[in-house]
Amino acid sequence: MRFNFAAVTDLDELSRVEWEKKPTFRSVLVPGTLTATQGRYHIKFENARELLTLHNEAGRGAEFSELTVYNDRLLTFDDRTGDVFELLNNAEATKSFVVPRFVITEGNGDTDKGMKWEWSTVKNGELYMGSMGKEYTRPDGTIQNRNNLWIGILNAEGELRREDWTDQYNVVRKALKALSPGYLIIEAVNWSDHLQKWVFLPRRISETAYDENEDERRGGRQLVLVSPDFSSTQVVDINLQKDPLKGFSTFAFVPNTNDRHAFAIRSVEEDCVGGLETCKQRSYFIVFDVLSGETLSEEVKYPEDLKFEGLEFVNIYTKPPPFSNMT
Amino acid sequence: MRFNFAAVTDLDELSRVEWEKKPTFRSVLVPGTLTATQGRYHIKFENARELLTLHNEAGRGAEFSELTVYNDRLLTFDDRTGDVFELLNNAEATKSFVVPRFVITEGNGDTDKGMKWEWSTVKNGELYMGSMGKEYTRPDGTIQNRNNLWIGILNAEGELRREDWTDQYNVVRKALKALSPGYLIIEAVNWSDHLQKWVFLPRRISETAYDENEDERRGGRQLVLVSPDFSSTQVVDINLQKDPLKGFSTFAFVPNTNDRHAFAIRSVEEDCVGGLETCKQRSYFIVFDVLSGETLSEEVKYPEDLKFEGLEFVNIYTKPPPFSNMT
Repeated sequence: MRFNFAAVTDLDELSRVEWEKKPTFRSVLVPGTLTATQGRYHIKFENARELLTLHNEAGRGAEFSELTVYNDRLLTFDDRTGDVFELLNNAEATKSFVVPRFVITEGNGDTDKGMKWEWSTVKNGELYMGSMGKEYTRPDGTIQNRNNLWIGILNAEGELRREDWTDQYNVVRKALKALSPGYLIIEAVNWSDHLQKWVFLPRRISETAYDENEDERRGGRQLVLVSPDFSSTQVVDINLQKDPLKGFSTFAFVPNTNDRHAFAIRSVEEDCVGGLETCKQRSYFIVFDVLSGETLSEEVKYPEDLKFEGLEFVNIYTKPPPFSNMT
Repeated sequence: MRFNFAAVTDLDELSRVEWEKKPTFRSVLVPGTLTATQGRYHIKFENARELLTLHNEAGRGAEFSELTVYNDRLLTFDDRTGDVFELLNNAEATKSFVVPRFVITEGNGDTDKGMKWEWSTVKNGELYMGSMGKEYTRPDGTIQNRNNLWIGILNAEGELRREDWTDQYNVVRKALKALSPGYLIIEAVNWSDHLQKWVFLPRRISETAYDENEDERRGGRQLVLVSPDFSSTQVVDINLQKDPLKGFSTFAFVPNTNDRHAFAIRSVEEDCVGGLETCKQRSYFIVFDVLSGETLSEEVKYPEDLKFEGLEFVNIYTKPPPFSNMT
């Protein structure tokens, strides 16, 4: 069996297109196929497409951190502006472009600052969107705000509601021994209809307090299955080589596996605290079994040094339906 | 009788805050009172407040072009990014700030370009938002697109629909002898529940084709009353001194007048084709009778040379209600 997928980058400050006079921001959309043969998976990348937008907040934009199909629309989420974009194709389906559909601000919403979206998933016909699940701390470790503990929920009519998920995140933190002063940084969460569980796949897991230099090497290799009411948890160790630089930035359930198999990306940011000059980014793709932690593919580095944070099973080569109102 | 009002600026490229390192954009919110005595009105301005945002498109932002209360929320509309912002107060009600709530793109919506919002009004519990009602033409006068003829309609749940208003705008253009190659530029439209009419108050009225140099001197002094189904129109000449530089950029119905009296702003952009160096902006406030065209106040220039495009009867000094979810 073969499935089409697509992955999208968050290049952080490297998203700025330096050669454009007007502030312009880019992300890279990479399509590919995942092929299953005798219980093992093979990953193949196809030609990348560039996604451009002029929308930005404070000179940052197109830092796309998730890719989710919702209501037959392919959505991506900017972790800087708080914008939710739809991906569309030109008439010949040779190019893709992004269209901002929602702008959502931090915490309870009463601020100019865009929400730092990191994950999204569909549950009961609603789109759940979340951030890194970590308090924003000052240099001395005290908490400045809890805005990134809120989630947003959009329904099919585009109506938004917000929930404070401090308690929910604490359940996951407790399961991984990362309660304060420890922490998690979360970029990959999905609800599984088949398993009737939330699946949290943290990027960083730390039993000790946040330190921006140490943080790059706190990569997690565990997932947490959580019951719908957050009353019980189960930790699964994923059978991966130990490399503390690598942490999960996104995953999607492989179709036709009853959500048993996950296609995930581990991303690296190395020496990025100093600035853009020393910062190295790269990403690795892998399939594993959600319940046993067994790996089911080679871990494949994307050839270019790009950081991917969104992944979805979707065919991006579809021609758009005719639009009668087009001029 | 005395009414609180507020006006908001669209400073165009002058919105950029030059001394901020990160792209930052500003608008000026001016509160004031309108006092009615023996059928005449007196306009008084109070201390201005600065509104700042980091959200922008291609280095333009905070170009606010309307101010409308909808569902007890004070909204303003960016004619560059397509963002709809809510205005909120700090706890002491001494400062106001803006929060982006919606991002809406041009025409049928399948583009990255933000809608050029110029007017908004409430009808049957829905928020109608429109642009300048003019085709986007190439230098040779041919039409490049009709995106600014579309309107957006938001309902109380935040759901958006779009309508192509080419026919509706043509009814108004015909009434003012501005059918192609002539044109209107519209920034002030309100629905009147009391009159059961649309009231169009064009900024520019031209019987001849668009020319960017001539356009600054095509200021209109007429309004058009339009029946709900756009089947009939009535033109009212407003009894104002002839000054072709002045054109209406916004208006609001004075409370308790059954929408008979309009509080309006005429704005000037002079020598702005050449660039920021020569461009002069200013605005004038006036009250007139919607049905007779009789003026009911002096025309008062705002002391600073700022261009206002939004006006609403609202008290901006209100303290926010306590918000139980605030951290």
